[in-house]
Amino acid sequence: VRGAPKTGEGVKLGIGDDAAVLAPPRGELLVATVDAVVEGVHFDRRFTPAEIGWKALAVNLSDLAAMGARPLWALCALAAPRSTPPARLAAIGAGLARCARRHQIALVGGNVSAARDLSLTVTVLGSARADELLTRAGARRGDAILVSGTLGDAALGRRPGARAALARRQRQPIPRLELGRAIAPYASAAIDISDGLLLDLGRLCDASGVGATIRLESLPLSAAIRRAAPPRMCTGAALSGGEDYELCFTVAPRVLPAVLRAARLARCPVTDIGRIDAGKGVEVVQGGRPFRPGRAGHDHFD
Amino acid sequence: VRGAPKTGEGVKLGIGDDAAVLAPPRGELLVATVDAVVEGVHFDRRFTPAEIGWKALAVNLSDLAAMGARPLWALCALAAPRSTPPARLAAIGAGLARCARRHQIALVGGNVSAARDLSLTVTVLGSARADELLTRAGARRGDAILVSGTLGDAALGRRPGARAALARRQRQPIPRLELGRAIAPYASAAIDISDGLLLDLGRLCDASGVGATIRLESLPLSAAIRRAAPPRMCTGAALSGGEDYELCFTVAPRVLPAVLRAARLARCPVTDIGRIDAGKGVEVVQGGRPFRPGRAGHDHFD
Repeated sequence: VRGAPKTGEGVKLGIGDDAAVLAPPRGELLVATVDAVVEGVHFDRRFTPAEIGWKALAVNLSDLAAMGARPLWALCALAAPRSTPPARLAAIGAGLARCARRHQIALVGGNVSAARDLSLTVTVLGSARADELLTRAGARRGDAILVSGTLGDAALGRRPGARAALARRQRQPIPRLELGRAIAPYASAAIDISDGLLLDLGRLCDASGVGATIRLESLPLSAAIRRAAPPRMCTGAALSGGEDYELCFTVAPRVLPAVLRAARLARCPVTDIGRIDAGKGVEVVQGGRPFRPGRAGHDHFD
Repeated sequence: VRGAPKTGEGVKLGIGDDAAVLAPPRGELLVATVDAVVEGVHFDRRFTPAEIGWKALAVNLSDLAAMGARPLWALCALAAPRSTPPARLAAIGAGLARCARRHQIALVGGNVSAARDLSLTVTVLGSARADELLTRAGARRGDAILVSGTLGDAALGRRPGARAALARRQRQPIPRLELGRAIAPYASAAIDISDGLLLDLGRLCDASGVGATIRLESLPLSAAIRRAAPPRMCTGAALSGGEDYELCFTVAPRVLPAVLRAARLARCPVTDIGRIDAGKGVEVVQGGRPFRPGRAGHDHFD
């Protein structure tokens, strides 16, 4: 992957030996995640090669954002048909490199293999202070539920002929790293909602042993999505469309002002969409009355 | 992956959140590598599901062995056709789990995705003391060149109708972890020879800025390979067959006795096959006269 930083903080030995040698920041914990993007599943022919490379790294960074962690290093395994033009591989690498540069991540490991489907499997390693780690467990009754950015754009961006603004949300997700670190000292729990708000907030509730009620009218919808689809389709996409790579997190009422200030400093809009309660699972209300959503979420294996 | 240890040394938060949280051993460096096994490239229909899972982890452990590192944690991304029977996936997981248990590795991250080819991409993280790390650079003129085990078995084990003893060498490689750690204080350089002795020793020489001469008659050949093929084919497989997952390492003459003792304690046979010299690249001699090998190595992308 030409153009990606090969060295950086803590890189003692980068790509080129049997393994990379890394010095984790003293006094911090290591945070590690793996995610793959596969042709025909996570991207299609409308993606430019650079968008494929960007997305492969960005989806992992979104997971680190949800932990309140700082990404440091990435390892990338590429599988591609033998017939793939070298220029296409280079362009994919350039997209990944751009995302790595933007977030000051060193690419410390790589692997190339033949396969019928083009895919990139990226592992990202980062670090966080033990007392500032965010997990899915920790939400408590009465906590406010917040989400970053706007929801549903990526799902509608997948549709044929989608407007560029929406398509970009699916093809070039921006991991919410600054926000994740900014809220880490305050939030009680967090998750990245790549599989859709309902499904992922449900996971957060299960991990925390609580329930949640969210207000349909509070869901943040972009101007682009409102123009592109009728309200019912917008809220459906916001609840269950998936691939938004925004953060959903919970905050005790007394620290809510501090969180809103931290989010403002991180230049990331956040919206209060509901409350954690003593129930089980996620309930959606509209104008105070129960609302029955359709499909729960977006599963990349189905 | 049922049956794989989900927790272990330093695992603060395992599978089930957005990312794993790990505590690296104090005062040691982190060692990280990624490798993939893909259907039709690294394994075929003759592999049992358990052998696929085992190999996916073992090939990564071999890289850590070559660094003198101790593996701690693994993250595994599985891609599989939607039609894959759940029992087959479970059996693959069981094979990976067996390898993980044997080497006391915790599986701390996972990902499942649809794809046309079955593949497993595994990242292994381990640790090593800074003063005992092995790299490819460091071989010096006059150093002895040693290899572990026997060579060529895996390459001949790939042939249709290969004997079980040879086929097993390809399907269930045993990473030389104990040996790697035992020689780490003494060896000047090391590499895992998964792509074949000539190609990988050539990489070690390039990284070290030296040349090498190896003696054809010193190559360790198993009784099984000698029975299975004529001498010329055996030495060809030993030089360039690939997939042996043995270690090739270099040792200054004065510490050779200490290395041989360490290898004996690690219960791993090692063989002196040549010398590092001031040249460039790898020369093979037979009875003191130049020998011209055929194909240089085994490239998984070709």
